[in-house]
Amino acid sequence: MKREDRIPRCANNDHTNEMATKRREFLQEKTGSDLKYTGDYTVDPSVLPGNVENFIGIVQMPVGIAGPIQINGEHAQGLFYVPLATTEGTLVASYSRGMRVINECGGVKTTVVEGFMQRAPAFIFADAREARDFGQWVTDNFDSIKAAAETTTSVGQLEHIHQWSVSKMRYLRFNYTTGDAAGQNMVGKATLVACEWIKANYPVECEYLLSGNMDTDKKHSHLNMLHSRGKRVVAEIVLKKDVLAKIMKVDTKMLAQATTLANTGALMAGAAYNGPHSANGIASLFIATGQDEANVVESHAGLLSHELLPNGDFYLAVTLPSLIVATYGGGTALPTQKECLEMLGCYGKGKVNKFAEIVAATVLAGDISLACAIIAGHWVSSHDKMGRNRT
Amino acid sequence: MKREDRIPRCANNDHTNEMATKRREFLQEKTGSDLKYTGDYTVDPSVLPGNVENFIGIVQMPVGIAGPIQINGEHAQGLFYVPLATTEGTLVASYSRGMRVINECGGVKTTVVEGFMQRAPAFIFADAREARDFGQWVTDNFDSIKAAAETTTSVGQLEHIHQWSVSKMRYLRFNYTTGDAAGQNMVGKATLVACEWIKANYPVECEYLLSGNMDTDKKHSHLNMLHSRGKRVVAEIVLKKDVLAKIMKVDTKMLAQATTLANTGALMAGAAYNGPHSANGIASLFIATGQDEANVVESHAGLLSHELLPNGDFYLAVTLPSLIVATYGGGTALPTQKECLEMLGCYGKGKVNKFAEIVAATVLAGDISLACAIIAGHWVSSHDKMGRNRT
Amino acid sequence: MKREDRIPRCANNDHTNEMATKRREFLQEKTGSDLKYTGDYTVDPSVLPGNVENFIGIVQMPVGIAGPIQINGEHAQGLFYVPLATTEGTLVASYSRGMRVINECGGVKTTVVEGFMQRAPAFIFADAREARDFGQWVTDNFDSIKAAAETTTSVGQLEHIHQWSVSKMRYLRFNYTTGDAAGQNMVGKATLVACEWIKANYPVECEYLLSGNMDTDKKHSHLNMLHSRGKRVVAEIVLKKDVLAKIMKVDTKMLAQATTLANTGALMAGAAYNGPHSANGIASLFIATGQDEANVVESHAGLLSHELLPNGDFYLAVTLPSLIVATYGGGTALPTQKECLEMLGCYGKGKVNKFAEIVAATVLAGDISLACAIIAGHWVSSHDKMGRNRT
Amino acid sequence: MKREDRIPRCANNDHTNEMATKRREFLQEKTGSDLKYTGDYTVDPSVLPGNVENFIGIVQMPVGIAGPIQINGEHAQGLFYVPLATTEGTLVASYSRGMRVINECGGVKTTVVEGFMQRAPAFIFADAREARDFGQWVTDNFDSIKAAAETTTSVGQLEHIHQWSVSKMRYLRFNYTTGDAAGQNMVGKATLVACEWIKANYPVECEYLLSGNMDTDKKHSHLNMLHSRGKRVVAEIVLKKDVLAKIMKVDTKMLAQATTLANTGALMAGAAYNGPHSANGIASLFIATGQDEANVVESHAGLLSHELLPNGDFYLAVTLPSLIVATYGGGTALPTQKECLEMLGCYGKGKVNKFAEIVAATVLAGDISLACAIIAGHWVSSHDKMGRNRT
Repeated sequence: MKREDRIPRCANNDHTNEMATKRREFLQEKTGSDLKYTGDYTVDPSVLPGNVENFIGIVQMPVGIAGPIQINGEHAQGLFYVPLATTEGTLVASYSRGMRVINECGGVKTTVVEGFMQRAPAFIFADAREARDFGQWVTDNFDSIKAAAETTTSVGQLEHIHQWSVSKMRYLRFNYTTGDAAGQNMVGKATLVACEWIKANYPVECEYLLSGNMDTDKKHSHLNMLHSRGKRVVAEIVLKKDVLAKIMKVDTKMLAQATTLANTGALMAGAAYNGPHSANGIASLFIATGQDEANVVESHAGLLSHELLPNGDFYLAVTLPSLIVATYGGGTALPTQKECLEMLGCYGKGKVNKFAEIVAATVLAGDISLACAIIAGHWVSSHDKMGRNRT
Repeated sequence: MKREDRIPRCANNDHTNEMATKRREFLQEKTGSDLKYTGDYTVDPSVLPGNVENFIGIVQMPVGIAGPIQINGEHAQGLFYVPLATTEGTLVASYSRGMRVINECGGVKTTVVEGFMQRAPAFIFADAREARDFGQWVTDNFDSIKAAAETTTSVGQLEHIHQWSVSKMRYLRFNYTTGDAAGQNMVGKATLVACEWIKANYPVECEYLLSGNMDTDKKHSHLNMLHSRGKRVVAEIVLKKDVLAKIMKVDTKMLAQATTLANTGALMAGAAYNGPHSANGIASLFIATGQDEANVVESHAGLLSHELLPNGDFYLAVTLPSLIVATYGGGTALPTQKECLEMLGCYGKGKVNKFAEIVAATVLAGDISLACAIIAGHWVSSHDKMGRNRT
Repeated sequence: MKREDRIPRCANNDHTNEMATKRREFLQEKTGSDLKYTGDYTVDPSVLPGNVENFIGIVQMPVGIAGPIQINGEHAQGLFYVPLATTEGTLVASYSRGMRVINECGGVKTTVVEGFMQRAPAFIFADAREARDFGQWVTDNFDSIKAAAETTTSVGQLEHIHQWSVSKMRYLRFNYTTGDAAGQNMVGKATLVACEWIKANYPVECEYLLSGNMDTDKKHSHLNMLHSRGKRVVAEIVLKKDVLAKIMKVDTKMLAQATTLANTGALMAGAAYNGPHSANGIASLFIATGQDEANVVESHAGLLSHELLPNGDFYLAVTLPSLIVATYGGGTALPTQKECLEMLGCYGKGKVNKFAEIVAATVLAGDISLACAIIAGHWVSSHDKMGRNRT
Repeated sequence: MKREDRIPRCANNDHTNEMATKRREFLQEKTGSDLKYTGDYTVDPSVLPGNVENFIGIVQMPVGIAGPIQINGEHAQGLFYVPLATTEGTLVASYSRGMRVINECGGVKTTVVEGFMQRAPAFIFADAREARDFGQWVTDNFDSIKAAAETTTSVGQLEHIHQWSVSKMRYLRFNYTTGDAAGQNMVGKATLVACEWIKANYPVECEYLLSGNMDTDKKHSHLNMLHSRGKRVVAEIVLKKDVLAKIMKVDTKMLAQATTLANTGALMAGAAYNGPHSANGIASLFIATGQDEANVVESHAGLLSHELLPNGDFYLAVTLPSLIVATYGGGTALPTQKECLEMLGCYGKGKVNKFAEIVAATVLAGDISLACAIIAGHWVSSHDKMGRNRT
């Protein structure tokens, strides 16, 4: 690469308006794009170290407000107004519509079942027997491994280690609780120290990789569906027959039949989620609140459960097994993102379960809305009215 | 819901600074969050209809620039500077590092294999025989169905229909090409008209849902891995042994062994992607360029292929089967997003394959970087240095 | 290996009682097992060439008869007595019980939707573009490829070729109809000739493997769930509320709730079948009738669909997407196996769809029985009574 | 159903030649099939109670002998002759060929990693919180639950309980060790008693189903891939470059490339096994030795791992995570089946791990053979020579 093609850098003071301007000028020269709006931001770049490198400016993404939604959680209780950052017309309106139904039915009940964050090293041995015997040693020495891991963190706690043997490898999956942080880096650091302790103390020589792709990080996996990466959260509601008929023009029997049909489609498709569209609400809420934007891929997996009740009402529940959320660390302290968290009463320590409940409740609202829109035939017409339907 | 809890609306002129201010004041009263930064934006809200409802302001997300990266595509050719919107420290630096390796190895070769967008209605019959016979009729009447679908669009073209029978249902999956738009709404509208035509012309009475969850929309599925939703793109490179050793301190034999180990982990985990972290680059590039932010869940699926060559070099290729991208429509015309597309020479009509190639090339760069970091033991230390490691 | 450890062979006349005796004597010397019963068979070994090598004797597996079952198929019509080869106590009784319920409800409706057998070569190129372009050439030259393939067979017909690009490889999946044979070898041979024709005629040099594991042969796969390997068959019934109550002591509402719960379990487990136990009936019927005994792994995949009807009756349907069956070739002509096929009126040409319907109907009977046993609490007690419960 | 259509039964003495004859006569009248060979058996039906109901005769399936194979296991040590019951020509010869390669390379190393059998009830509550809290109670009361379960068995031991919350349900998966029995019925009975104890002692009223389909019984599942149902066994070998070249006419580099290509195919197909054909050997060995014939569907899942070593040799290992085997109970005591177990030195108590090792070694042999046949182009020609290729 030629020197003149290199992006300008500054060793000591990189996150400044000056450097951003310098880079935009460089990019204008190289690409012709003046990046005028991208440079026209109001955030102070001095807050950005730790969030981005080679800073050039700010992408401005519109935020709409959905709600309010009545949440009857253990941590989130009351009416919430939910900020959704999106460029997809209809999305905010659709979630709002689902929230209205929820409110008319008395609110959504939310439950955080459990929560873990993982790092999953793989150890390599001479043969399968060594790999198996190592596994037993790990089990026997769990307390020491835990102690080693936890020297790196005042928050993270190693709860348990899952293990799998394949050929001459032993895959471990360290499961931590991580307080109000999502914790991917926290557990990476802790597991590194734990692995070094293992390597130093295990009588047989062994090699390891800090990740053997069983974490599984930044990708959906069936493993995450089974063994929660992030929070496992449930949002439940009994949808009243007459409320659905009035607001959605949908009969609960039709909803039951359509949900069953969609379940079958999801099962045949091998889908990560059997409901309509968990990813929309999660992505928008994640971006608005400074969550790690890539974690929507793990977080959108889930199970939508339903039951037509004898009285014609309709039980509906979403279970999100791997909802990765934080109210502390990462992008949560950036100016606009922090405000969006504060609007939900979810910024800072001790808030992560509350936030998880709000996300699950929002997903349920969106699924109620889209499922009914598909049944009642409003799906296309609403996008015609509110979206950017290209023809 | 009490009247005073309702979000303020304005029937005729909702996307204005005034309405946004009014809503923020309302939210401040309700939640205590003043939303000062969220309201301190430079975008003109008159551009926002079609992208958001209940507009309250703007989330500001930092953009870093990665690259340049030498791409030797059919559509993208030359050096590209890649805008990544992120709040995850280390991410931009890591992708840049991978791009440097790519450049030293002569650039990445990119290929768009095919591209479709789907809507998948399900028809319900009295029994399995009716469902099967209906399928034959659909095949026989494809030309008429195609004509009906295409009345709604000057861009979309119905290419083929996949069909599946389950019990008394027949699931159809309409596959369209959609020009430079992602096309979800375009194909929804076209398929609705096609279904109405079918219902009117099929001799047997039948019911249908516009989506039976075989699309599969806004969720990962194995079906999407097989039958591309969005573009199917490949990015390939031969990594030179000495370049990897010099820049990454990694031997290609170790890389081969680690990649195999990670493949096994991914297979055992049932992961949507067998490489390190496709979702990071995709999410960041999607947000920067106004893509539908939820589509990262479909788009992150893929296959990372490798081969240790006899001379010690290392062939590495990423195949993304369902990369959903647009250079027109949706959020692509928003001010900052449009600039980021323009910086890549990818705004507007006739650019979508070019953009798809850039995304795939970026993913490959990120995977080179992270795979080597894990092997060389830099993973944790780089996050310590550049990220927000919470302890 | 020492000469004296080699199994005795005979070049010209290997399938004889003499050679079998000689081998058993050899094995007795080597292992101490006299193989008395294994050698005490009534089959004439001269029928065995083409079915086994190194013949030593016969395993005798008991056959029980289930039924009759009233089948209202397109090919199978009337009452059928179903031979089940098994060593699992309770199995025959349980299937019989389900058949009784089916009969009382008027019989099971069966439908063969489609049927294919596949061989899936993979072609390797210099890069992804060559692989993609090759795919287009294959599409353009389908008629010639089909002609080449069909030179090897008077029965098999190449219907269509599915294609997938991954990195620099192009996976093809040749789909044939194969008459009354299962056809794995038939399509292997045809595809080999087709591939040789391709290699000779495609302008670019290329290599291929006759199977790239996308067949997918002798293993379950999600691909087979989507694109039938073998017959796609549906068996349906409306279970009458009062019949279930009388025979099974099960209320249809409970059955609906339990089926939903089991669906969720199957979805979370990532199961190949969401009903109770398709494999039991398929394996037993396969062994009794000389099917390829390993094909139960493909064949057991499926979807169990249900619907609680307004009048309290219960619609239940099993869809088996990849039921691999034959009424000709393979083991179907062996003496006892042929008799079991004849008992079903399914030996020889033109019978394979009839047999497929009987298998699907049998699976449905078994699932009705086991689902109700689990609900009513008879599962354990029936095994206590009829099986070999070890304690 | 008319009385005259009913299969003849006999309350007290059903497993006799007389009853079998009576039923065959009945079937001849009903179906026209005389069942001559099926009735010409040498097994004494008095051994059959507990293995079959409505006994009508015996299916005779030919057994070929493969091997010998040198196994260097912890339980299986030495040369073994492996009985394979099959009707698929070429199968025995192919496995034998693979065994010859194994022997020339010094034998196969086998390792049993762990082993469990499961029953997985699901408990239903009023809401998700009750389900979650119940889970905690189960954890806290594990010792009492274990004690209750183990009252029913002198062999089975409850090792641990996995738990999952979905909506208002709590799925438990009881993991037992079961000695030398496969144990499905043993654990069913134990879990029933444990569930009744739970129901009696848990302070909140609850309902349960004895199976919520998370076992997962008689079907493949991703869950079984992760959490072994049956034995988790590994068979490993280093294939010598010159041996492969001599016997198989295959170069190890080509084998490495082909294996990688097949891995990719399996990953894209969503296959339960990424090697060539685990199911063939397992099904044939299961039938010969009186294993539960349907369990091949769980057992055939696995991972084939490979590594091209610096000296050109080739490490190959098969990991079978859910191999369900028994050397006691079920069909293992039937005359011919017992003999086949005895020939392996595997009949009776204390032999199950030895048998598991033999099965895994056999699978590896078959995969070596078929992989090489595909590469060397012998696949079709060998079936032409030895099988029943229909044209």
